[in-house]
Amino acid sequence: MADDVEYRGDSDGVPAFIGWTLRGVGQVVFQNNPVSGAVILGGLYYNSWIYGTVCLVGTAVGTLTALLLKADRELIKNGLFGFNGALVAIGLVAFSSKDFAHGTPPTALLWLYLVVAAALTSVVVSVFMTLLGPHKVTGLTMPFILVGWMFLAGALHFSMLEVGPAIKPTSPSDFTGPRPAYTVGTFYHGSINGLAEIFFQDNLMSGIVILIGIAINSRISAAMALLGSTLAVAIAALYGAHDEAIRDGLFGYNAALTAMALGGFFLVLTRAGFFYTLFGIVVTTWAWAGIATYFEPSGLPVFTAPFVIITWLMLIGQYHFKAVVPVSLANSVTPEANLARYRVGQNT
Amino acid sequence: MADDVEYRGDSDGVPAFIGWTLRGVGQVVFQNNPVSGAVILGGLYYNSWIYGTVCLVGTAVGTLTALLLKADRELIKNGLFGFNGALVAIGLVAFSSKDFAHGTPPTALLWLYLVVAAALTSVVVSVFMTLLGPHKVTGLTMPFILVGWMFLAGALHFSMLEVGPAIKPTSPSDFTGPRPAYTVGTFYHGSINGLAEIFFQDNLMSGIVILIGIAINSRISAAMALLGSTLAVAIAALYGAHDEAIRDGLFGYNAALTAMALGGFFLVLTRAGFFYTLFGIVVTTWAWAGIATYFEPSGLPVFTAPFVIITWLMLIGQYHFKAVVPVSLANSVTPEANLARYRVGQNT
Amino acid sequence: MADDVEYRGDSDGVPAFIGWTLRGVGQVVFQNNPVSGAVILGGLYYNSWIYGTVCLVGTAVGTLTALLLKADRELIKNGLFGFNGALVAIGLVAFSSKDFAHGTPPTALLWLYLVVAAALTSVVVSVFMTLLGPHKVTGLTMPFILVGWMFLAGALHFSMLEVGPAIKPTSPSDFTGPRPAYTVGTFYHGSINGLAEIFFQDNLMSGIVILIGIAINSRISAAMALLGSTLAVAIAALYGAHDEAIRDGLFGYNAALTAMALGGFFLVLTRAGFFYTLFGIVVTTWAWAGIATYFEPSGLPVFTAPFVIITWLMLIGQYHFKAVVPVSLANSVTPEANLARYRVGQNT
Repeated sequence: MADDVEYRGDSDGVPAFIGWTLRGVGQVVFQNNPVSGAVILGGLYYNSWIYGTVCLVGTAVGTLTALLLKADRELIKNGLFGFNGALVAIGLVAFSSKDFAHGTPPTALLWLYLVVAAALTSVVVSVFMTLLGPHKVTGLTMPFILVGWMFLAGALHFSMLEVGPAIKPTSPSDFTGPRPAYTVGTFYHGSINGLAEIFFQDNLMSGIVILIGIAINSRISAAMALLGSTLAVAIAALYGAHDEAIRDGLFGYNAALTAMALGGFFLVLTRAGFFYTLFGIVVTTWAWAGIATYFEPSGLPVFTAPFVIITWLMLIGQYHFKAVVPVSLANSVTPEANLARYRVGQNT
Repeated sequence: MADDVEYRGDSDGVPAFIGWTLRGVGQVVFQNNPVSGAVILGGLYYNSWIYGTVCLVGTAVGTLTALLLKADRELIKNGLFGFNGALVAIGLVAFSSKDFAHGTPPTALLWLYLVVAAALTSVVVSVFMTLLGPHKVTGLTMPFILVGWMFLAGALHFSMLEVGPAIKPTSPSDFTGPRPAYTVGTFYHGSINGLAEIFFQDNLMSGIVILIGIAINSRISAAMALLGSTLAVAIAALYGAHDEAIRDGLFGYNAALTAMALGGFFLVLTRAGFFYTLFGIVVTTWAWAGIATYFEPSGLPVFTAPFVIITWLMLIGQYHFKAVVPVSLANSVTPEANLARYRVGQNT
Repeated sequence: MADDVEYRGDSDGVPAFIGWTLRGVGQVVFQNNPVSGAVILGGLYYNSWIYGTVCLVGTAVGTLTALLLKADRELIKNGLFGFNGALVAIGLVAFSSKDFAHGTPPTALLWLYLVVAAALTSVVVSVFMTLLGPHKVTGLTMPFILVGWMFLAGALHFSMLEVGPAIKPTSPSDFTGPRPAYTVGTFYHGSINGLAEIFFQDNLMSGIVILIGIAINSRISAAMALLGSTLAVAIAALYGAHDEAIRDGLFGYNAALTAMALGGFFLVLTRAGFFYTLFGIVVTTWAWAGIATYFEPSGLPVFTAPFVIITWLMLIGQYHFKAVVPVSLANSVTPEANLARYRVGQNT
């Protein structure tokens, strides 16, 4: 790989594949930066060595699959075939463990299952390149979501695979009565857990480390993630959501991702773009609640579907709106760089 | 707006925005005509001032959002960013009210919720322009449906938002036994309520006024709406559907919309086009029953999904069929005008 | 039709329409060959004259509808408008019969219902030509699946249409405990029933006759079908699936279809293509389990959705992978011919 001189960011000393894998971890939160990926991975290991290891394996499998199938090298190097593998691997372990918070070590059969799932995400990443490429939008985490939905639900049919207590079919019912009595902890836990929950972690320190990992590559992205998660908690509290759901970060993790995607990464962070992002955060918060309802009869989780659906709508929709400014996919690196290019009139 | 001389239909004396909004109301039933919109709105106010007001606000919000986001002015003026906002606003109030028939005045939090929902429909309208434009098909009422599904289901998770008794999860079960004993009222109520139900109204007079509103702009559309609703009732009765479901217009409202869409508006009303429309009406009737089954475990309504899905299939499908003649989207005004242009060989 | 000199395969003596219909039956398993179709039809009649007749009617209706709507004649002649009609007709009878294994003769109203359903599949076939054509992928059996889902679920709402005992809403639950005690019969029945189940047949001899029908046109396809069904049974047993579900061929029928589609028909059967196919078989097996879970609350069957979804993903995805070689849709006849053309460098 030493002669890949045009490739930005990998020093010669670091074995290339590890770099690509770490970038893959960072790409979960739009950070194409191996240091960000390493810090985030540290945040996972801090909470649970199982989740840290599973994340690393999932990212590596997704990346390896793309290499074996001879996909575009530049995309592989930027971690774009890894991040869905990371999420599907952690997700399958988290929802099949008796202890969601720290995970149970996978059995051999579960390892095989999640390795195949992670490999499949690389095929689906390619599918969305084909389908959404003409609309200049990416698949985001939808490959993970689709594969995760299939494989996690599939586990119910096999006696050799278990699912944890979070998989619980219920009949939707209306949450009524007075607004719950929230505490300061509701807001604090809700906002930070919203960041940790992106990686299925239920740990305040992991959330903070993930935020640091993002900030290493982009202060704007970090600010957006925190804004998204916090605003989502505020909206959820204003409308009287369950205290526990807010505390667990369930309202925040999708909103944080939408905020990063719309707030500077795929759209230039102009004044109008900022308000468009705020709108997206609010809508994502409610979309989580709405989509969750349809999943209750089956008991399966929505994963990051609210983020992907709302971000897709707002990105595909904006091509008819002159008020907001899209960033060319090929050039999007950080919100800061996108804004700088826009200010000197180089945004194309 | 006075210098918009090429713009058809808005007199100078009427404030333009009101005209666009009234066209938006008319566009729910494919009538780009402010007088039709005003009459239909009157039909809503006759049943309930709440629904009339909410409809007006929803249409205005959808239109305003498109203006703020700097969407195509010509589309905005023709009410194409308003009608989905109208429906989502009425739908959210109807299904969150204890009294579906007349509605309950929204709380401040519900107002905010439905205003954001109506605004979001304008983003989704633009999404379908992008996705379906190349296939010369429009989003129809799918923006309302998608946003309505998310926001109505979301209300279940918030103690500050209520849902009405129509939201009731059940397990699908087979309706067996002899055909119910229908009366003349079944057919009469079923056909007319099918028209009123397009706007969530449960009122015979509203249904008749809506039909008049359509007829003001197009006699063919009015005839098609009535044919669709009536034929749907006949098919439902032939197959022995629940008497109450037929009476409430549940079989008719989707079929009436399909009939208007295929019967002259998007396809020229040739002899083959007429039979294609009849086929679409029959299929839509059964599709309502089919799609409704999948929604029973969640208890949420199907809205106009059967109409949109069947009309999409029959419009996208027909491009490979030489037997039917599509109307160019840009030129479609009324079935009468489409037919006249076709007869003189100007259909392109 | 005698002057259709460029048309391959129909002798003058055979009435052309019967030939197209028999090809339609063969196309369910990718065999564009009237003899294959006739043999397969024989396999159905062996099990039940009802299913044989319904299959013939469904295929003929789908083909006739395309003729009436003036679709592309070449596609009609190759049976491409018939096979979805075949499946939807058998499926509606199978799931509405008290006796799934042999079927109950349809009532007049059910005949009308399934004829309209079969006609609708031809519209949907055309829809997927439009939507997927640019990606060089076909609709496979998705027209049958979509129409079948709508019409079968719709039957629940009509007292004049019944559904059989296989339509049973349940709440998803985790299958736990030790791996079931499988017998040799589990593997034997599971593999062969997997082939029969493609046509909803629950009969070992029908499965063998279907395999012979495939082999008449393509030995590779027959080998792939058997490989897919057998490997699916092995995977399902390794992961401890329900003995009865394996025996009934529920794990095998989708995997057999995926194996034929990827194993030589849409992709050249190179070494990499073979491993890609194996991957597809494994994934399809698990996908069946996953998708089935989401259908449990409504009680409806998944049909061949796992096959179509996984095959779509792997075919659309592979356009970014240089490791596998797609076959031009226009030229795909048999895996043998595709391979021969590839070896002499004529694959385009």
